[in-house]
Amino acid sequence: MSSGADLPVSPLAPDRFPLLPRVAGMQAATLSLGLYKGKVRDELLVVHFPDGATAGGVFTNSLTRSADVDWCREALVSGKGRARALVVNTGNSNAFTGPAGIAKNRATVEAVTKLSGCAPHEVFLAATGVIGEPLAPHIVSGGVVTAWPQLAVPDWSKCANTIRTTDTFAKAAGEIVNLNRRNVAIAGIAKGSGMIMPNMATTLNYVFTDAALGPKVVQALISQLCEVTYNCITVDGDTSTSDTLMLFATGAAGGEPIDDPADPRLAEFTEALHRVLEDLAIQIVRDGEGATKLIEIEITGAASDLSAKTIAASIANSPLVKTAIAASDANWGRVVMAIGKAGEPIERDRLSIWFGQHQVAKDGARGAGYSEAKATAEVSGEKVFIRADVGVGHGRARVWTCDLTDGYVKINGAYRS
Amino acid sequence: MSSGADLPVSPLAPDRFPLLPRVAGMQAATLSLGLYKGKVRDELLVVHFPDGATAGGVFTNSLTRSADVDWCREALVSGKGRARALVVNTGNSNAFTGPAGIAKNRATVEAVTKLSGCAPHEVFLAATGVIGEPLAPHIVSGGVVTAWPQLAVPDWSKCANTIRTTDTFAKAAGEIVNLNRRNVAIAGIAKGSGMIMPNMATTLNYVFTDAALGPKVVQALISQLCEVTYNCITVDGDTSTSDTLMLFATGAAGGEPIDDPADPRLAEFTEALHRVLEDLAIQIVRDGEGATKLIEIEITGAASDLSAKTIAASIANSPLVKTAIAASDANWGRVVMAIGKAGEPIERDRLSIWFGQHQVAKDGARGAGYSEAKATAEVSGEKVFIRADVGVGHGRARVWTCDLTDGYVKINGAYRS
Repeated sequence: MSSGADLPVSPLAPDRFPLLPRVAGMQAATLSLGLYKGKVRDELLVVHFPDGATAGGVFTNSLTRSADVDWCREALVSGKGRARALVVNTGNSNAFTGPAGIAKNRATVEAVTKLSGCAPHEVFLAATGVIGEPLAPHIVSGGVVTAWPQLAVPDWSKCANTIRTTDTFAKAAGEIVNLNRRNVAIAGIAKGSGMIMPNMATTLNYVFTDAALGPKVVQALISQLCEVTYNCITVDGDTSTSDTLMLFATGAAGGEPIDDPADPRLAEFTEALHRVLEDLAIQIVRDGEGATKLIEIEITGAASDLSAKTIAASIANSPLVKTAIAASDANWGRVVMAIGKAGEPIERDRLSIWFGQHQVAKDGARGAGYSEAKATAEVSGEKVFIRADVGVGHGRARVWTCDLTDGYVKINGAYRS
Repeated sequence: MSSGADLPVSPLAPDRFPLLPRVAGMQAATLSLGLYKGKVRDELLVVHFPDGATAGGVFTNSLTRSADVDWCREALVSGKGRARALVVNTGNSNAFTGPAGIAKNRATVEAVTKLSGCAPHEVFLAATGVIGEPLAPHIVSGGVVTAWPQLAVPDWSKCANTIRTTDTFAKAAGEIVNLNRRNVAIAGIAKGSGMIMPNMATTLNYVFTDAALGPKVVQALISQLCEVTYNCITVDGDTSTSDTLMLFATGAAGGEPIDDPADPRLAEFTEALHRVLEDLAIQIVRDGEGATKLIEIEITGAASDLSAKTIAASIANSPLVKTAIAASDANWGRVVMAIGKAGEPIERDRLSIWFGQHQVAKDGARGAGYSEAKATAEVSGEKVFIRADVGVGHGRARVWTCDLTDGYVKINGAYRS
């Protein structure tokens, strides 16, 4: 099994790990569990909220989801959005592990409740790595016991590195923003590189804030912003069994908690959180397996926003579109094909397509001013922008993906064995 | 633009072009149109039924379908399933060509009706190749005029070669079968290698018989058998703008036409036609771009046959499953993932999976007798068989696909420019 650290860093990676603020009211520790053979690295992340936090989350819609996802969904409901700890391990996804997977979770939660004195439903879990390999229950719970005395102010770089699998760089984003006349911090970490087509959420993504927010607000924010960020990215159209996006709000920045999602004081914070989530989501695409180009696809003129997103995803998941762009081939006919197969309302004879600034198609045929050289220039850089107007309504959406190269094939022919 | 003949022949290609029977009541001719620069090959196929034929067809559901597909759908309806001629060109798909595409069709149909004395709606058209490049209207119609005097008993190899684009081998299948106490012939040709995920039909596929069959029977047979053959294959999940599957029955074998789809005398013929269509469809997968392995996926225990097919297609289109199999990696966890993301009813904790004869998963976890060596052996050959029982009902389906290799990326980064 590969930890991914063997792979060359994506050419689309940011220059450096970003600045992240300190989030008051939380501690973290990381630990090596020895799960990656022949390599020493941390595979366990433990986060503790000593005074508790409100929590909201969105999880994979996969019907073969991991035992950890099952646990979190139940815990969020039965605990009414209260959190005290988060335990994430890489090296094994604990998906499709039957009773062994449940035993691992039970042991982990028991270890945390003893150490922290909290209720079981205040403990959140996640696991990522190979699917279907049972993991001895004591490995993660033993790690929690060992890591607990080391809990301290989070080292964000360590936290983000610990949750990587095939990622070629650690992903994080943060902001400091005004909320209710106080400066509050937002810090998020993410992992993901392959098996990326979020369906309600994606891979492992945790955002922490010390803002004082009630559980209704936390859940509303994460659900609404996930829809226009994480749910708008795809690397390969494959949906993970472990997809998780959670937001924890410690309230340690002070002030009365805001618990009405319609409260106008949330505006600035919501915008900042949107930027953080979009940043993290696009970082995942930038680390798409084998990626050499970041592709943004915008659809306008669709019957609805959802319809626009379906059309954009059809283009973003088309291997023919993605291989053409990898080769800097302005093969806009394949974009026509991908729009046609999406099954959503479109007017073929009013369909227009742009590659960057250059209009390649207009009203159902090649654009009158079409220039092969201009179109090729638009798909030759590291960032490619494709826009199509499908001519039926006012729905619009943006989706991000990457190109498909032989790097993807090589990585995924080598990952497990 | 590549004609595909530059590519090495697929390792999954049949050893030789098959034996095909003579189909009475039809003639064919092929001709070079000079559309592939720097290469002399035939790009035009003209088929003539001097005494007419009954015709049925299924066409792409793409909303950006070609002008030729539009024409055929209308002609089938307005002509009530009567046919006199078929004109197919490669080198240009006539899709997304607006008024120029309609002009090309009008000129072609006019040429045929003059030469044959038939009605416009008895002429069927198809075009395949690059999307969105307008083609001067006289090229195909002029070719028809030149080719017409050469109409003769079909040379099936020439016909099948003429409709190739990126195909690395010519695809055909045929049988002689008893119908209504007469021997009747069935001969089919097909093309397709990329942009393969039929939605009602696929690429260009023509089956001819001299059986006497009324239009209702012809349409019923092709619709019903397409569902379990062509609509069960995928190479890349991309759906062509030109997908066409047509059956022509000349009736020249004699006898009263059978025109009731429920007529029990059709049984043997239906079985033979099913074999021919399945053979052609699997040949397309065997020529899947970059393919080194043929993969058959069978789903049982689904809520319905349609649900089983959706789950099978989710596995067949998963780039993670396809790259693992390319590398002979028995990564059955990715099959679990693809079943989970399909969105169809399944029981995770009753899910069982087999690679060939070896059960890799049972009741929602790894099989007790799991052997990595045995599982690997099952995915190491040129034919891979994956079966899953999803534990909810009696629905079943089979789908065929191929592996995903860097050959696919190379071919599709080079096709157009």
